Amino acid sequence: MDFLNSEKIKAVISDFDGVFTDGTGIVDFEGNVSKKINFQDVLAIALLLHFGIKVAIITGEKAGAVDYLKRKFPKIDVFQDIKDKLPVVKEYVFSQGLTSENILYVGDDVNDAKSLLYSGVRVTVPNANPLIKETEGIILTKKAGGEGVIREITDALLGDKIKTTFCSGELNEQVS
Amino acid sequence: MDFLNSEKIKAVISDFDGVFTDGTGIVDFEGNVSKKINFQDVLAIALLLHFGIKVAIITGEKAGAVDYLKRKFPKIDVFQDIKDKLPVVKEYVFSQGLTSENILYVGDDVNDAKSLLYSGVRVTVPNANPLIKETEGIILTKKAGGEGVIREITDALLGDKIKTTFCSGELNEQVS
Amino acid sequence: MDFLNSEKIKAVISDFDGVFTDGTGIVDFEGNVSKKINFQDVLAIALLLHFGIKVAIITGEKAGAVDYLKRKFPKIDVFQDIKDKLPVVKEYVFSQGLTSENILYVGDDVNDAKSLLYSGVRVTVPNANPLIKETEGIILTKKAGGEGVIREITDALLGDKIKTTFCSGELNEQVS
Amino acid sequence: MDFLNSEKIKAVISDFDGVFTDGTGIVDFEGNVSKKINFQDVLAIALLLHFGIKVAIITGEKAGAVDYLKRKFPKIDVFQDIKDKLPVVKEYVFSQGLTSENILYVGDDVNDAKSLLYSGVRVTVPNANPLIKETEGIILTKKAGGEGVIREITDALLGDKIKTTFCSGELNEQVS
Repeated sequence: MDFLNSEKIKAVISDFDGVFTDGTGIVDFEGNVSKKINFQDVLAIALLLHFGIKVAIITGEKAGAVDYLKRKFPKIDVFQDIKDKLPVVKEYVFSQGLTSENILYVGDDVNDAKSLLYSGVRVTVPNANPLIKETEGIILTKKAGGEGVIREITDALLGDKIKTTFCSGELNEQVS
Repeated sequence: MDFLNSEKIKAVISDFDGVFTDGTGIVDFEGNVSKKINFQDVLAIALLLHFGIKVAIITGEKAGAVDYLKRKFPKIDVFQDIKDKLPVVKEYVFSQGLTSENILYVGDDVNDAKSLLYSGVRVTVPNANPLIKETEGIILTKKAGGEGVIREITDALLGDKIKTTFCSGELNEQVS
Repeated sequence: MDFLNSEKIKAVISDFDGVFTDGTGIVDFEGNVSKKINFQDVLAIALLLHFGIKVAIITGEKAGAVDYLKRKFPKIDVFQDIKDKLPVVKEYVFSQGLTSENILYVGDDVNDAKSLLYSGVRVTVPNANPLIKETEGIILTKKAGGEGVIREITDALLGDKIKTTFCSGELNEQVS
Repeated sequence: MDFLNSEKIKAVISDFDGVFTDGTGIVDFEGNVSKKINFQDVLAIALLLHFGIKVAIITGEKAGAVDYLKRKFPKIDVFQDIKDKLPVVKEYVFSQGLTSENILYVGDDVNDAKSLLYSGVRVTVPNANPLIKETEGIILTKKAGGEGVIREITDALLGDKIKTTFCSGELNEQVS
């Protein structure tokens, strides 16, 4: 991903499975599901929030990993078990005093199609559903789901700002 | 996998280990086994059911991941802990008012051999037991077990039907 | 691995970590360890036992995955938490009425060195400790630990016997 | 990594996530995190301690895997949930009667930057944050996080000493 002009972007809204993860889940003997996340994406959320960009996760499933992120970052917004995502996305954008122009949306499967089309900046992953990759204006990340997609987007959005802050050590309390 | 003429196929019957998974299991300190599944296959089950194709899983083991799928999709049929699969497959086919011609069977190891030979369409994975790959008329998927084999089969079976439905958003309630 | 003349081999004794697994463990928040095994190796144990070859696992650690295998195959011998393996191996061989000539030993790290030297057939994996790979007469498997090493050895030992039995379906009750 | 002159190195201090692991975590349905470690690194700790090199782990997170290592090796020092690492590193070095010259520090992300600059020998991994890889005098391991980084460093530090000891079997009680 090349540098993104972040001036207009005020919020990153992302799907969970296939973006934060590689689309798999580990199911235990009682039928409970675990999911593998990348701590690069955890750091990315800290960075986005630090620089005033809102973060929301919207997923059709329900995952302990999403609960974990919400506990770690109370400031993010989390919508789980959402069958029809677009109305929730629209309501969220309105409630934050934003417009669709301010939204960078990340999603990889068919239930993200309408939210991607709605959003100003549309991002998906190399392992996305082929239909999603045909979305008008879609941007592909280099990293596959679970490899640090949100971090890649964050680097593209924040660019040199991260470097400056890293060197000053300011982030030490947010990032771990 | 190329496009499959789905006219005759009324049911997909699949083995679990090595098809839905890569053939591994994670065993915890108490000896309980977890298995990693791909949510592409979960979506595939939703698609097959949506288009009126029956789905059954038949496995020699017993796994929480299979229970999970049954809870998620009460309409699928699940046969666990089956040592001799063919009689169960035959009984299932009969009970559904189908014949062996209507069955696409997916399996990767020796205990699937007879069920594969019985079924109209026989599918296995690249990482299958070599003896299975020699089955007469066997079709190999491109994806290995755990990478979305059922999704690949579903795409081959349903083809353009998926695209049309995806675009209309009809599936939003089934797929998540 | 090429075909092994199995006439003399009456028992396969194997290390666990790095052979049945890739040498990693998943540690949960309470410090309990899970390990990923390959069900190809589970099937291999069934095959070895079916053809009258004894199976023993000897490990310096203690793992729920080893307990799981012992529960699944009560006929195998399991030695866990063994700091000095050679005396245990010798005692086992003696108790079974065998000699070192009858043993195929599989191990990948330094605490297997002496048991390998003691055994008639010495096998290790590509990802073994470099010092182990220098053992006199050592045979390297193609598969790495966790990819089905025991299955590869079993195929090399049993060769055509497996094929004949598979086709007759005799194994259906042992293998699942 | 080439051979390191270990004369001055009296302690290895390492970050946990991204060094002992690949930077991912598995989150269960209740939000608890598991992490995958490599038993090559467990063996490496045994080797370092055996040869009189101190080992400390310093992490911004809190992980059951770190507790596990501490239980296994009571002699190592463990600092978890540390937001600002450098003061803790300095205090540790002082308390051990060492100076910064005696420290080999391993870290992969921005919160390790200052501790790396402070330490005599600075090591990071190929998958580290790009900013960290620009650290003056930084040494890159060949292995990525989770593949046995600490073992690689240990081999570089101890070189032939390991071989001699392995062959004499002296380590049998420490390493398993």
